[in-house]
Amino acid sequence: MALVSLKLVTIIAEGFLEEKLVRDIKRLGAKGYTITDARGEGSRGVRASEWEGSNIRLETIVSPAVAERILNHLAEVYFANYAVIAFVENVEVVRGDKYT
Amino acid sequence: MALVSLKLVTIIAEGFLEEKLVRDIKRLGAKGYTITDARGEGSRGVRASEWEGSNIRLETIVSPAVAERILNHLAEVYFANYAVIAFVENVEVVRGDKYT
Amino acid sequence: MALVSLKLVTIIAEGFLEEKLVRDIKRLGAKGYTITDARGEGSRGVRASEWEGSNIRLETIVSPAVAERILNHLAEVYFANYAVIAFVENVEVVRGDKYT
Repeated sequence: MALVSLKLVTIIAEGFLEEKLVRDIKRLGAKGYTITDARGEGSRGVRASEWEGSNIRLETIVSPAVAERILNHLAEVYFANYAVIAFVENVEVVRGDKYT
Repeated sequence: MALVSLKLVTIIAEGFLEEKLVRDIKRLGAKGYTITDARGEGSRGVRASEWEGSNIRLETIVSPAVAERILNHLAEVYFANYAVIAFVENVEVVRGDKYT
Repeated sequence: MALVSLKLVTIIAEGFLEEKLVRDIKRLGAKGYTITDARGEGSRGVRASEWEGSNIRLETIVSPAVAERILNHLAEVYFANYAVIAFVENVEVVRGDKYT
């Protein structure tokens, strides 16, 4: 089984940002994404239930270069105004060509 | 705290595959699994909502050998016909004997 | 983009433990958390549907020291009595100061 090393970028954000986030990560090079509904509390101490709707947990597997672009974009556009968190992990992926 | 290094295998697939996937990974050696409902878009550009129902995100913590067996099985049986993605991460687990 | 290396602790537990787990991880140093609803089967062979309600999948990004404290606490307080699993991954985080 040939595995390819790629980056898993996970973004947790308020639910109303879903469409905008999806549009942005695709423009920056993501070929796909998975979203689950979530709830939680961040460093501001605000529960999701106090916001407009709940949170989303968006995952996308991308090349290191696209991961960097996505994180830079989040930092520039989202972090000042929204309760967004983002983290990156190394993953081994089957069918690596689907993602780049 | 004694931690054991194992593999976290994550499979994202169309929801109607849940029973079949669970049966397969258990037969291949997985001792447990966790499923969350998901939605998304893959490299085929197909949103989950256009399929029969939504997606699932299935996680299982297994030994490296079982991870290899699961990935090989997915490649042989699922990848040609279904919009399945799979990736593997290294995790440190408490109570490692539960998983192998 | 400055990334900080931290620990992602994931806890999967029966849903009725949510409030207690959240209270405990915050007391032990977690600054935030994300929860998704889940279902599954563990090494006891018990499906979530046979319990009181379903499972939760709780994630929190913390320092290595807080991760250690959380795992020790889970081992001491939860593992004997509840179907809890926990695992740790290395993650690269944007805005690392939010988590410690």
